[in-house]
Amino acid sequence: MSETFREDGALAVDWVASYLERVRELPVLSQVEPGDIRRALPVSPPDEPEPFSAVLADLDSILAPGLTHWQSPRFFAYFATTGSEPGVLAELLIAGLNQVGILWRTSPALQELEELTVDWLRQLSGLPEGFHGHIEDTASTGVLAAVIAARALRPDRPLLVVSEHAHSVGEKAARLLDLELQKVPTDDEFRMKPDLMRVDEACAVVATIGTTGMASIDPVPEIADRCSAAGTWLHVDAAYAGSAAILPELRSHFRGWERADSIGVNPHKWLGVPVDCSVLWTRRHEDFRNAFSLVPEYLRSPDDALNLSEVSIPLGRRFRALKLWAVLRCYGRVGLQERLREHLRLAELFEGWVRAEPGWDVVAPRHFSLVCFRLDASDEDNERLLERANDSGEIFLSHARLDGRYVLRLAIGNFRTTEDDVTLAWNVLRREAAAL
Amino acid sequence: MSETFREDGALAVDWVASYLERVRELPVLSQVEPGDIRRALPVSPPDEPEPFSAVLADLDSILAPGLTHWQSPRFFAYFATTGSEPGVLAELLIAGLNQVGILWRTSPALQELEELTVDWLRQLSGLPEGFHGHIEDTASTGVLAAVIAARALRPDRPLLVVSEHAHSVGEKAARLLDLELQKVPTDDEFRMKPDLMRVDEACAVVATIGTTGMASIDPVPEIADRCSAAGTWLHVDAAYAGSAAILPELRSHFRGWERADSIGVNPHKWLGVPVDCSVLWTRRHEDFRNAFSLVPEYLRSPDDALNLSEVSIPLGRRFRALKLWAVLRCYGRVGLQERLREHLRLAELFEGWVRAEPGWDVVAPRHFSLVCFRLDASDEDNERLLERANDSGEIFLSHARLDGRYVLRLAIGNFRTTEDDVTLAWNVLRREAAAL
Repeated sequence: MSETFREDGALAVDWVASYLERVRELPVLSQVEPGDIRRALPVSPPDEPEPFSAVLADLDSILAPGLTHWQSPRFFAYFATTGSEPGVLAELLIAGLNQVGILWRTSPALQELEELTVDWLRQLSGLPEGFHGHIEDTASTGVLAAVIAARALRPDRPLLVVSEHAHSVGEKAARLLDLELQKVPTDDEFRMKPDLMRVDEACAVVATIGTTGMASIDPVPEIADRCSAAGTWLHVDAAYAGSAAILPELRSHFRGWERADSIGVNPHKWLGVPVDCSVLWTRRHEDFRNAFSLVPEYLRSPDDALNLSEVSIPLGRRFRALKLWAVLRCYGRVGLQERLREHLRLAELFEGWVRAEPGWDVVAPRHFSLVCFRLDASDEDNERLLERANDSGEIFLSHARLDGRYVLRLAIGNFRTTEDDVTLAWNVLRREAAAL
Repeated sequence: MSETFREDGALAVDWVASYLERVRELPVLSQVEPGDIRRALPVSPPDEPEPFSAVLADLDSILAPGLTHWQSPRFFAYFATTGSEPGVLAELLIAGLNQVGILWRTSPALQELEELTVDWLRQLSGLPEGFHGHIEDTASTGVLAAVIAARALRPDRPLLVVSEHAHSVGEKAARLLDLELQKVPTDDEFRMKPDLMRVDEACAVVATIGTTGMASIDPVPEIADRCSAAGTWLHVDAAYAGSAAILPELRSHFRGWERADSIGVNPHKWLGVPVDCSVLWTRRHEDFRNAFSLVPEYLRSPDDALNLSEVSIPLGRRFRALKLWAVLRCYGRVGLQERLREHLRLAELFEGWVRAEPGWDVVAPRHFSLVCFRLDASDEDNERLLERANDSGEIFLSHARLDGRYVLRLAIGNFRTTEDDVTLAWNVLRREAAAL
């Protein structure tokens, strides 16, 4: 099999390389209709083996139109991401090794590299010692896990507190765990009002640094004061913006997060790691272990090492640390900082263009690489504007609702995005606005 | 960057190819001590970028001793797995494309291929139409999700019923969801006794086809009768053995599973797909959607397609369907059946050797590719025997406890395992037994 593997591997590497070379020119948002892709594929699986090249051929001819190009430098929707080259190749190694982290001994390298790389990221982010971390698939799972740990400590407080602008993962966690949810109102800069939190009744509060809608920043120091006084678990969700903590000049946005009981940051959002890689740090490692640890007989082993399966929902885990390691090494602190600073510069530039243009408004303070703006027109016009821009295939943006108004979001976060790409986005938006 | 990517990609493919060529000769179970790997790595991340080749070099010189070789044909512990060649290369494509399945439109190809491939597997497994499926990371998450859906239907029944030999995921789900757990006693063939289930009080029952300890088979038809009469959700956990449903001659082991409300099977265990890939089928798709769906404003889109994030815990998902697709196509039904039949033949062979050897006993009925056996000696001697065999590095087996006794487990499931590897295992075990 291994000669075939080398040949097929060369084809696969070449396929990805060519894809990355031409992705800028592809329609960013897939233009197919629901069902188109499935209808083009056989209803039943093949009986006989086919060569890997046949898979690649169908990827090109059948699946490609159904891809929305997250790797495109012109993807500005949600939060833009990058599957960077070292991260992509690390996934090949991860699959080739096929390590399954259940117990320490089922892959000492996986477990110890996971502990090390999340500690590297802690150092880069200016967090103090005492935070231990591990990797979850997504922030949804991380928030759920943190709330589970919190509720195990305070089962008498079946309430979860989040901001009205918090990511829906908080609401989802509350629903899945059968907890009551308080959505706390926000101030004129979309920040949770701490004095309205029912913190004494809550097992946990989720504060956000960089909300999904507009990247607002909850007043974490004051929230931490109140959580601390009430004995309430504080989880800081910094899934998107947390990566920016590697920039010392932005550290003020993170004031107080070192007082959280747990913190989530997604290197698969803004640090070049391919999905999935969501880091969860906690100062309450033992409480996580108490909530999750369950080692049945068939998994007992002679060593007494801590096993990462004792702090997470899944029993087995992939060797995700290897891609975080590859990215941190192949870019280095300096390389990652450079890319994030360039994104901030581009966001500032775009924000300036919007502010300077009559008939357009910036509608939320910009702290990171997300710009929230709208055409000075009806919600319906803004919605049509967005659909027209996205349907053009040239760019892809998404929206949010702020104070009841429909607003457009331009999120910069792809390592391949240049000033030309951002200029294109602005030109497309103005063109489509004029054509409305 | 793309020339570097081609060069680094060639290095990475070559690394994996060489690894797979020599993995049979490597010590199966890592022989390092806790902390060894981490101590050999820098405490802090690098400031400056390093080449990808430096990552590969450290993988060889520092991490390699900390790997337990799940890809080894001499890995017989837990359930043996294979990261097959097409599956490994598909992971490269998955990362290169970096699709994030949140909404249908964020990757129509991801969602539709996921729905299609799990339907292909449904057909291969002889399950009727009406089961819809999606892919979870692991069976732990799948069981948790099924129990969440079940509890949403019957919040008045905070009880989960599992067999005393069920996988610990059931117990974990109950703990995380704050449900009471009933562990139902089993009969002399380790099958749950349906008449002892408190089925009227339960929101869900988890029955297992192929338990982790000894691959026993719960009496699913009778359990389904009782669940049906009581209006209780039945989840069938066939994480390991479910793959064998592609063999018509083993279908009788799966009698009644078509009556389950949900079923979990892990293609990353016995079907050659690299971790993670756990399929969850359900006849109650709408109940899943009711339990999990939550589409916030910033994720609303003009189409009204169902989104896979509406039936799972995580919001975003990887393009795991691509590796399941690659494996199903590159092996075909016939190729996968051949490999599983060979594993069954090898397990039967090993079982015969144990039965024929004085002083050794087979201690559980063998239905699939797992043999449970022990030396006719004390538990302590069996435990020492296992440790000696594993410490030799030649093979890796694990254990279980049956009727209070310590027993050894030989699990065959790696596509590269040959009769010579199984013969070696038997020779090592007899050698170490003689040396006790």
